[in-house]
Amino acid sequence: MNYKISNGRLLIDDGDKISVRSEDLYIRDGKISFIPFSQGETFETVDAKSRLVMPGLINMHTHAYMTIMRNYADDVPFTDWLFNGVMPVEDRLPAEAARWASLLAFIEMIRTGTTCFVDMHMYHRQSPLAAKQAGMRGFIGRGLVGDDLFEKGNNRFREALEEKAEFECGTLKFVLSPHAIYTCSTTLLRQVAEQSRELSMLKQIHLSESVTELKDCLEKHGMTPVRLLADLGFLDDKTILAHCVQMQGGDLDLIRESGSTIVTNPASNAKLGNGFAPVADILRKNINLCIGTDGTASNNTLNMFRELGLLSLIHKGIEHDPAALPAETAVRAATVNAAKALHMEERLGVIREGACADLIFLDLREPSLFPGNNILSSLCYSANGSEVESVMIDGKFVMRNREMLTIDTEQVYYEVQKAADLYL
Amino acid sequence: MNYKISNGRLLIDDGDKISVRSEDLYIRDGKISFIPFSQGETFETVDAKSRLVMPGLINMHTHAYMTIMRNYADDVPFTDWLFNGVMPVEDRLPAEAARWASLLAFIEMIRTGTTCFVDMHMYHRQSPLAAKQAGMRGFIGRGLVGDDLFEKGNNRFREALEEKAEFECGTLKFVLSPHAIYTCSTTLLRQVAEQSRELSMLKQIHLSESVTELKDCLEKHGMTPVRLLADLGFLDDKTILAHCVQMQGGDLDLIRESGSTIVTNPASNAKLGNGFAPVADILRKNINLCIGTDGTASNNTLNMFRELGLLSLIHKGIEHDPAALPAETAVRAATVNAAKALHMEERLGVIREGACADLIFLDLREPSLFPGNNILSSLCYSANGSEVESVMIDGKFVMRNREMLTIDTEQVYYEVQKAADLYL
Repeated sequence: MNYKISNGRLLIDDGDKISVRSEDLYIRDGKISFIPFSQGETFETVDAKSRLVMPGLINMHTHAYMTIMRNYADDVPFTDWLFNGVMPVEDRLPAEAARWASLLAFIEMIRTGTTCFVDMHMYHRQSPLAAKQAGMRGFIGRGLVGDDLFEKGNNRFREALEEKAEFECGTLKFVLSPHAIYTCSTTLLRQVAEQSRELSMLKQIHLSESVTELKDCLEKHGMTPVRLLADLGFLDDKTILAHCVQMQGGDLDLIRESGSTIVTNPASNAKLGNGFAPVADILRKNINLCIGTDGTASNNTLNMFRELGLLSLIHKGIEHDPAALPAETAVRAATVNAAKALHMEERLGVIREGACADLIFLDLREPSLFPGNNILSSLCYSANGSEVESVMIDGKFVMRNREMLTIDTEQVYYEVQKAADLYL
Repeated sequence: MNYKISNGRLLIDDGDKISVRSEDLYIRDGKISFIPFSQGETFETVDAKSRLVMPGLINMHTHAYMTIMRNYADDVPFTDWLFNGVMPVEDRLPAEAARWASLLAFIEMIRTGTTCFVDMHMYHRQSPLAAKQAGMRGFIGRGLVGDDLFEKGNNRFREALEEKAEFECGTLKFVLSPHAIYTCSTTLLRQVAEQSRELSMLKQIHLSESVTELKDCLEKHGMTPVRLLADLGFLDDKTILAHCVQMQGGDLDLIRESGSTIVTNPASNAKLGNGFAPVADILRKNINLCIGTDGTASNNTLNMFRELGLLSLIHKGIEHDPAALPAETAVRAATVNAAKALHMEERLGVIREGACADLIFLDLREPSLFPGNNILSSLCYSANGSEVESVMIDGKFVMRNREMLTIDTEQVYYEVQKAADLYL
């Protein structure tokens, strides 16, 4: 179906600045256009009066399957969280439950305006299966651990390639996803770097998340985690680095030179007691900065609007500067910067001719957005995500007037609750 | 009207811990009861299946009239914000516009589960007029400034007492509200302290919000703002201190000994670049800690659920401790601690026999609260406020099934927009 979106206010990022324009928009074959339909083209008109139409937000680091563990292991030390909370559940959980939990994640993402996510998962085929059903745009990776990608008994890399072969399509792409430097050998990390070049695949990793990770790496390798990855040839413009909280002298320069992207996860880093990423320094170095929610076991929501606010507020507070990290910077971190990291520049995260029609419609008559003195500010400082009324991904509505169109919410609740009762 | 609330899950704080119980609740003459209606008592049954019924949140520091300036002066240095942003608007704004803006504030408060607010306002009679119409519970104070409460030309204290005489009732109380130590003389502050004792009124003040305030006070008075207030006899258990970001050695002990309450405003303090209050120290000293949003010109929302999350996340991050400021502490800061500060202990912020029926109903089948592994956690870490479906204040529904019952939302939007167009 093609659509004419009329009477809406469009959030336009021209690269120089973000502004709001009143203009009609045309969705033709899943792509955004400003060119009106010609006679003979069939389309439906969508009235977007009092609606802000903007690019869907891009959650650059999450684990959708973890949504079954929302609020499951809070207010406890990190080791309790991981070893007594999260990991035993992961061991018990059947693959199918991970698919239902991922669908629950997508309900929350769609409801709060996220149209694209980068996922590191544990259960073969479940995340892409769920994303396909939901109509989400996803960049998905089977978590990799161990000594050698190709060793006998380590099936994960094979599974990762199988998922890519089975599911890769216009809306689903696959990402090589070694878990971390402390769960992967240097051999494996070097292999991933090689495979990333050979297969032309993006890669992601958790990096320098905690003081423990940094300390252990300094002890074991005599260098920081960032330097280790640089030495292994892992850092390039296809690399997505989640967390980067513990940055030492030189680390940010290495990242900057490599063209890698940093994904900051403000809620998760704070909640697990890892602290705050040096976001002001990251911006000063002109490193590509994106935002992730991480999984719900450490956040505990997938609401990117909360993350925008957190990012800006925390860093204004740290810098003692109300002008630090303005709303525009936060919104870009969740839109155009993410598109750049995903090598989808000018095709994602932006309203422009030919870009993918991943759009969200916000009701400007919600009290949190009223009066609309500064719409860009409101996205960062006052929206709570519930203003999102309709969501389009790849030109198809997945939620319209708050009705979920691709997911049976009640069935998902039923199945997730059943699994929670059995396995948590 | 009396109500039987059946099938709900009740959030019960027994002083020792907060737990969730499935039990019927009875609202009789505006008060909470566990005693079933006897024959002859008329009541309506409210089905609260899949609903969490909990005490309404208490926003302990705000300026409701400022809601017209939401997102009006962001991402600029503090002096620009105050002198070029906020103050010229305050000068231009007619009183009636402040009433409409306050009603907009109450729409947002009610929609996000706040049933009671502490307000410092600028426009004679407008805040209580609006609160009365909305059915909000309010503790309201005309902002006081100047050299002497009783000097000729300073009408504010007289206005404050007039408001009290005109509006004080079961749901509206009045609070003496000197603005700050840098806008009030020591004479005036001493007078307020005396009046507070004489009239048995609560008092509130902005205190030690910025480094500038602290520095200037040290220079002018040779002591910290807290010590200054202590010396003036201002600090006692009827004193509500907003902000308290810049605490020096001895300050917290003085506050602790006096029995005064600290209201932390995490979003506002971060957003204006004032930094983070020493919340961990405040808690270690066993000072009564509450939460405020401040006005929307510096937040920019009145959503207390966001504030709960911010408070806990920021202080876990600062302390590098995931067990710091658990969900229970945050929820208490917005409920029972506020009741204590307002001298309404056991009557507000709690579900117990005889307490005021200020209740909010959350839909537990919203994705952010699902699955319900830990409801208390979900209030702090995953709720965004939009889960609030019905709100009762003093035994009367002000919102039911998301329909506002006391405020004509469209009229408020119309009037606020008209005033914004004219005066911003």
